[in-house]
Amino acid sequence: MKIAVLGAGNVGGALGKLWAAKGHEVRFGVPDPESEKIKALLASTGGRAKAGSNREAAGASEVVVVSVPWPAAEQALRDCGDLSSKVVIDCTNPLSSDLKGLVVGLTTSAAEKVAAWSGAKVVKAFNTIGAGNYGNAEFAGARADGFYCGDDAAAKTKVKPLIADIVLTPVDVGPLRNARLLEPLAMLWIDLAINQKWGPNHAFKLLRR
Amino acid sequence: MKIAVLGAGNVGGALGKLWAAKGHEVRFGVPDPESEKIKALLASTGGRAKAGSNREAAGASEVVVVSVPWPAAEQALRDCGDLSSKVVIDCTNPLSSDLKGLVVGLTTSAAEKVAAWSGAKVVKAFNTIGAGNYGNAEFAGARADGFYCGDDAAAKTKVKPLIADIVLTPVDVGPLRNARLLEPLAMLWIDLAINQKWGPNHAFKLLRR
Repeated sequence: MKIAVLGAGNVGGALGKLWAAKGHEVRFGVPDPESEKIKALLASTGGRAKAGSNREAAGASEVVVVSVPWPAAEQALRDCGDLSSKVVIDCTNPLSSDLKGLVVGLTTSAAEKVAAWSGAKVVKAFNTIGAGNYGNAEFAGARADGFYCGDDAAAKTKVKPLIADIVLTPVDVGPLRNARLLEPLAMLWIDLAINQKWGPNHAFKLLRR
Repeated sequence: MKIAVLGAGNVGGALGKLWAAKGHEVRFGVPDPESEKIKALLASTGGRAKAGSNREAAGASEVVVVSVPWPAAEQALRDCGDLSSKVVIDCTNPLSSDLKGLVVGLTTSAAEKVAAWSGAKVVKAFNTIGAGNYGNAEFAGARADGFYCGDDAAAKTKVKPLIADIVLTPVDVGPLRNARLLEPLAMLWIDLAINQKWGPNHAFKLLRR
């Protein structure tokens, strides 16, 4: 699959590397594709990923992953131009600057704003677990879940195997409005990791029987 | 422990029965303690639980459990009189009437309102799993978690074994303000059960390593 990853930080970098290793055609969208940091990232993929502007990355891809910090998300999407034919995966959490809460409330969600800004078929995913657990989500024999939601069935069908590629169990939790619930779930993960000082080695699983 | 359970519906009824079986002194606070429904509930505990007004139940107990529907919570707490010396366990979720969202936003939480109304040491607990799973929270060998949060360490120490009694693994997720995150987590549980038609046989677990 041709995937644009907007942002090459800990979330985007980890996703892009793992997807590249799975044979996907990954393009990072970054402000400076020639920087030493990006060159090192591309080298770490064995040359299987590329980098360009947000517009170049998105233009060459069918899936666009938003993995920039929340305050940069709107501009990154606008940079891409027309996204109406793309699947956008929103990994953001609209965190307040002190990491103690969300700046987007339960009457909407980051994912719904992303949908409005992009006009694309948006799936919320990858936001409820720390990026250090991507590809490494086994916990004493139990595998962490990758919760996702969205309004377009075809887009979700496309995203599901991308979640499995990251070695998370894909769990469809319904329509995009449920990002209003996944974003607080992510905030809980973050609060435990940072404010409660647990560190990053925890993950949510939805038990079923 | 002497425990007042405000409300005898599916949440309060299940908690009270299980705690009574564990030897706790349970008093249900209900509008009509002489009703056939309450008599049947008390009989089902083998006579080990009592019922009275909210004020009677709370006055005789050291722990007060709020398990009435959210719209009834403020009045139930006011009925109890002075709660400043009690531990209050808030099990509520401030659901909108269509069960599709929360009516209390991320800038506060039901638990924090309960704290303001009661003046008590409040612990949020028991709200993130369906009551049908209380005492029955094993899922293919994995046990569901009972997340709780609060600002008073002594109150949390008191509540923790009460969670274990319900056969959930107690997981302390920090200060009371984190009820802002547990309440959306509960909304996710509820949305999957009802709106996504999964039914009640699922539960969250926080994997660790």
